[in-house]
Amino acid sequence: MFYPEPIAKLIDSFSRLPGIGPKTAARLAFYVLRMKEEDVIDFAKALVNVKRNLTYCSVCCNITDTDPCRICSDKARDASVICVVQEPKDLVAMERTREYNGHYHVLNGAISPMDGLGPDDIRIAELVRRLGDERVQELILATNPNIEGEATAMYLSRLVKPFGIKVTRIAHGLPVGGDLEYADEVTISKALEGRRELN
Amino acid sequence: MFYPEPIAKLIDSFSRLPGIGPKTAARLAFYVLRMKEEDVIDFAKALVNVKRNLTYCSVCCNITDTDPCRICSDKARDASVICVVQEPKDLVAMERTREYNGHYHVLNGAISPMDGLGPDDIRIAELVRRLGDERVQELILATNPNIEGEATAMYLSRLVKPFGIKVTRIAHGLPVGGDLEYADEVTISKALEGRRELN
Repeated sequence: MFYPEPIAKLIDSFSRLPGIGPKTAARLAFYVLRMKEEDVIDFAKALVNVKRNLTYCSVCCNITDTDPCRICSDKARDASVICVVQEPKDLVAMERTREYNGHYHVLNGAISPMDGLGPDDIRIAELVRRLGDERVQELILATNPNIEGEATAMYLSRLVKPFGIKVTRIAHGLPVGGDLEYADEVTISKALEGRRELN
Repeated sequence: MFYPEPIAKLIDSFSRLPGIGPKTAARLAFYVLRMKEEDVIDFAKALVNVKRNLTYCSVCCNITDTDPCRICSDKARDASVICVVQEPKDLVAMERTREYNGHYHVLNGAISPMDGLGPDDIRIAELVRRLGDERVQELILATNPNIEGEATAMYLSRLVKPFGIKVTRIAHGLPVGGDLEYADEVTISKALEGRRELN
C-alpha cells in the first residue's frame, strides 16, 4: 500500500461495507480527513453506540434502545392487531404510511431453505408466545412479496390456525404510480386475482 | 424519525458522506448493527486516528503519519526531480506505475477561480521554497488534464521560470486501451499535437 497506515486502515474499514469498493472507500476516507474533528468523533461514537446501546425488544423483536420498545410500550396503540414484518426497515416503511396503529412483530429474517434458514432461525417462537395474549385478534402478514416472504407467510398462517386468530396477508397488485406495460406477469395476475368491485 | 436514536444517528453520520443518500445510509447502518463488535470498534478507531494521527508532510505536503513522509525521507529516491500533483490520491496513482523514483509535491488543490481558490489557497509557497534546493533540476507538472489543472500548470510554469529549472508537463493523448471512436476532439488534437516519430 502506498497510503500512510491510518488512512489505509480507514479505507479497509470502509471497503468492508456492502456496495463500497476500493475506489469509493478511498474517496470516503479522504473526505473524512477533511471533515471537522468533532463530526468524525460523533461518527465514531455513533458506530460504537449502535453496537453497544441497541438490543432487540423482548416483545416484538424490533431493534430498540429501550426495552420494551416505544411501540410496544405505547398504550395508545391497538394491541388487538400484530403486523408481522421481516426486518426493522420494513417496520419503518409501514410506520411511514401513518395508517397503521397496531403492534408489530419483527421476524429478523425469512424462511429461506436456500440460505439454510428455517423457522427456528427467525423470531417465530417469540411470535407464537405473544398469541397467548387474548387481546390479539388479527395477525397481518406483511412479509416481502417474494419467494422467501411468501413461504414465511404460508408457514405462519398454518402455524397460527389452531389459535383461531384472523390471519390476513397484505395485498399484491400494481404499485401506485406504476405502469401496466412494465409490470411483470405475476404482479398483473395477482392484481387481477385481488380485484375489487368499485362503489 | 421512526428509528431508535442510536441507529438514527449513525444513519445521519453515514448520509453526510459524499454520494451516500438516506437509503444507502440506512442499509450501511443496519449492516454495522450485524457486524462483529470488534470490527465496529476498529472502524471507529480508524476514523478517529485518521483525524488525529495524520498531518501534512512539512516538505512535500502529502498526508503522512511521520514527518517528513516516507518518500521525502527515502534516501534512495532521486532528489533532482519533483513531480507536482494536486491530491494525495494522485501521488498514489503515480506510485502505482512503479516508474517514477523522484520526489513529489502535493498541492492539495488546484487554482480554480470558480471555487474561489487562488494560488495562495494551495501549497504553492511551499513548492517555491523547495526550489531553493540546488539539487532540484526538473519539475514535472502532473496536475489533472482539466481546466483547473491546466491553469495551475500554466501558473506554475511561469512562476518557476526565473529559477532556471526544467519544467515539463505530463503528456496528453489517448488512454491506453481506449478507442479513437469514443475519444473527444480535444484529446485527439492533443494526441496529434504530441505525436512522436517511431523508430
